Amino acid sequence: MGITHGDINGVGYEIILKVLEDERILELCTPVVYGSAKLAANYRKSLGLGNIPFNQIETADEAKEGTNNIVNVVPEEMRAEPGVSSQEAGKAALVALERAVADIKNGDIDVLVTAPINKANIQSKEFHFPGHTEYLEAAASDDSPAKALMILCNDSMRVALMTTHMPLGKVPEAITKEEIVAKLELFNRSLHRDFGIHSPRIAVLSLNPHAGDSGLLGTEEQDIIIPAINEARERKIMAFGPYAADGFFGAGRFVKFDGILAMYHDQGLAPFKAIAMESGINFTAGLPFVRTSPDHGTGYDIAGRGEASPESMRSAIYAAIDIWRNRRCDDEAHRSPLRKQYREKGSDNVVLDLSGE
Amino acid sequence: MGITHGDINGVGYEIILKVLEDERILELCTPVVYGSAKLAANYRKSLGLGNIPFNQIETADEAKEGTNNIVNVVPEEMRAEPGVSSQEAGKAALVALERAVADIKNGDIDVLVTAPINKANIQSKEFHFPGHTEYLEAAASDDSPAKALMILCNDSMRVALMTTHMPLGKVPEAITKEEIVAKLELFNRSLHRDFGIHSPRIAVLSLNPHAGDSGLLGTEEQDIIIPAINEARERKIMAFGPYAADGFFGAGRFVKFDGILAMYHDQGLAPFKAIAMESGINFTAGLPFVRTSPDHGTGYDIAGRGEASPESMRSAIYAAIDIWRNRRCDDEAHRSPLRKQYREKGSDNVVLDLSGE
Repeated sequence: MGITHGDINGVGYEIILKVLEDERILELCTPVVYGSAKLAANYRKSLGLGNIPFNQIETADEAKEGTNNIVNVVPEEMRAEPGVSSQEAGKAALVALERAVADIKNGDIDVLVTAPINKANIQSKEFHFPGHTEYLEAAASDDSPAKALMILCNDSMRVALMTTHMPLGKVPEAITKEEIVAKLELFNRSLHRDFGIHSPRIAVLSLNPHAGDSGLLGTEEQDIIIPAINEARERKIMAFGPYAADGFFGAGRFVKFDGILAMYHDQGLAPFKAIAMESGINFTAGLPFVRTSPDHGTGYDIAGRGEASPESMRSAIYAAIDIWRNRRCDDEAHRSPLRKQYREKGSDNVVLDLSGE
Repeated sequence: MGITHGDINGVGYEIILKVLEDERILELCTPVVYGSAKLAANYRKSLGLGNIPFNQIETADEAKEGTNNIVNVVPEEMRAEPGVSSQEAGKAALVALERAVADIKNGDIDVLVTAPINKANIQSKEFHFPGHTEYLEAAASDDSPAKALMILCNDSMRVALMTTHMPLGKVPEAITKEEIVAKLELFNRSLHRDFGIHSPRIAVLSLNPHAGDSGLLGTEEQDIIIPAINEARERKIMAFGPYAADGFFGAGRFVKFDGILAMYHDQGLAPFKAIAMESGINFTAGLPFVRTSPDHGTGYDIAGRGEASPESMRSAIYAAIDIWRNRRCDDEAHRSPLRKQYREKGSDNVVLDLSGE
C-alpha cells in the first residue's frame, strides 16, 4: 500500500499518522509511506499522537509486512511550515509522487493512496497538470494510452465526472457525444470490475438547468446528451437520463442508481460532498493500477492544529484494498473461461464443434 | 394569502388540498385559491382527502376570514389529465397567475404562493419567460423597474442565485462585477428586511472549480468576483469568498453564513436540495410584494397518485407569512424615525439645532 505524503505543509502527515496510529490497519495491508521519517516524527510529536514505529527503507521492495514502512524521498533537513504554500513543499510532493508511481509500475507496491497536493506550488517542468488525475493519466500512458475517469464515492453513491479541472466556460465545448459514450463505457467497466456490480445502472445528469427544459434553456441535452445515452444503450450499457441535477439529488433519486455521470466538477462534487460529508473518497478509474485519495484538499487553514479528520484518508485506504480485491476476483473469474459452444437449435443430433473460436 | 393552482395536470391541487385539509392553517391566514372549485373537488375525491369546504367567490375582495376561498378563473367544464402536458393546462396556469398578480398589486391579497407551472406549455404571447421569477419581475416593473432575486431557503440556509434560468454556456458572460454587487445589495437588503437579520454575513461561491485555483482553472474569480466582493464591502455589506462550492457545502461551512450567493442554478440548487430535501422553498426577493413557492416542479410522474408531499407547499405558506410580518415590522420600525441631532463635540454650551435635516 503506497501512500504519498502530499503537500508537507498541509494536513497530509496528520491524516496519514492518525490512520496508522491504529495498528489494526496492519492486518489489512503493508503501508509504504513515501515521505520523510523526520517530518513524520516531528508531526507526530507536535500533534501529540501515540508511538508509531516506522521501518525506514531505501526502496519499496525492502518493505516488511506487519509494520509501517517509510521511504525517505526528501533531504533529512527539510522542515514543514504548516499552512504555508512553498515551492519547496511542491517539490517534495512531486518527488514522492514520482517515486510511488515508478514503484507501482514495477509492481513493488500494489495500490496507491495519495495525500492532497497544492495544485499551485507543485507546477514545474515535470508537473504541468491541474491535478493528480491528469498526472496519473499521463504517467500511465507509457505503453498504451490510458483514459482516466475521476469517480467520487462513498458506501452508497458513485459520482463520475465527464469534465474535471477546467474553467466553467470551457465545459460546454468539451461535452461531445463521443466523449460521453467513451466515459460511460469506462464508468460501466469500472463499476463492473472495480466495484463488483454486475449490470450497473448509470444516471446521466444534464448540462443545463432543468435538463434544458425541452430546449428553452439550452440544446445540448437534445443534440448531444440524449443521442449519447441512446448510443450507450445500444452498446448494452444501462444509461438513463439526462436528469436535472437539483431534482435528482433533492428527491433522493440517486439511491436508485449504481453510478452517476455528472457533466462538470461542481455539479457532481457539491451535492456529493454535501451528502457524503467526511466519508467520501476519490478513485481514479481507467488506470492499469488502483489509485484512491481523500476527497478534500491540503486544508492549509487547519494544518498542524490537530483538527483534521482522518476519516476520508482511512476510507481511501479501505476503498483501495476493496477495489484491488475486486479486480483480482474479476481477473480470476475470467482467467480461463470455458470456450463458447454453439449448437444449432432444433438439431440435437449435430455433433458439437469444439474446434472453433 | 393568494395561492395559484399552477399546472392543473401536475401535483398543484394535491399539495394545496393536502395543506388546506388541516384547518389550523385558517388560524394563520385567509387562503384565496386561484383555480377551479370543480377541479379542486375532483382531485379531492380521487385522492380520497377529507372534506375541505370552499367559499366560491368572484373576486378576492369577497374573501371571508376563517374559511378557504376559491376564485374560479377557468371554465367549469375544464378537466384535468394528471401527468399530461397540454396547452390547455398552460393557459389555465397563466390565467390564475395573471389574476393573482393583478389582485396583489391592488392590495386585495397580501402575499402570493404559486404552485408549480410547466415552463414548456405555458409559453404564449403573454408569457415568454423561463419561469415565475422572470414573469413576476416584469409584472412588478410597471411603475418602477424591479430587480428580482431568486432565493431558496429552509430554516437554516438561504441560497440566492446570481443567474437563474439560462443555458450553462451563457453563465460566464452574465457574471459581471456590477451585477454581482447589485445582487449582493439586493440580497443584503432582503436578508435584513425579509428575514430580520441585522448584519447578514454573505458567502459568495466561485464560478470555476476550486475557486479557479489561483488562475489555473479560470480567471473570473480574480478579475470579477473578488473585485465585486471588495466593492460590496466598501458599501458595508459583509460579503466573503469566493468559496469553491464543493468544499463549502461538504465541510459544512454554510452554517456560518446567513446567506449564500451561488453563481448559477445547479451550483446553488443541487447541494441545497440535497441538504434541504423536502423542507426547501423558493422566495422571490426584490419585488414590492411577497411571493414564495415550493422548490419542486409539476411532478408529472407522480401526479394524481396521492404520493406528492405537501411539506414544501406548507413551508412556502409559512415562509410567506413570516416574510410579510418581517416586512411589516421593518416598516413599522422605520416609519417615524427620530431626527438625527448633531452636536459639536467639545462645545456643550451650543444650543441644539432642531430645525435642520
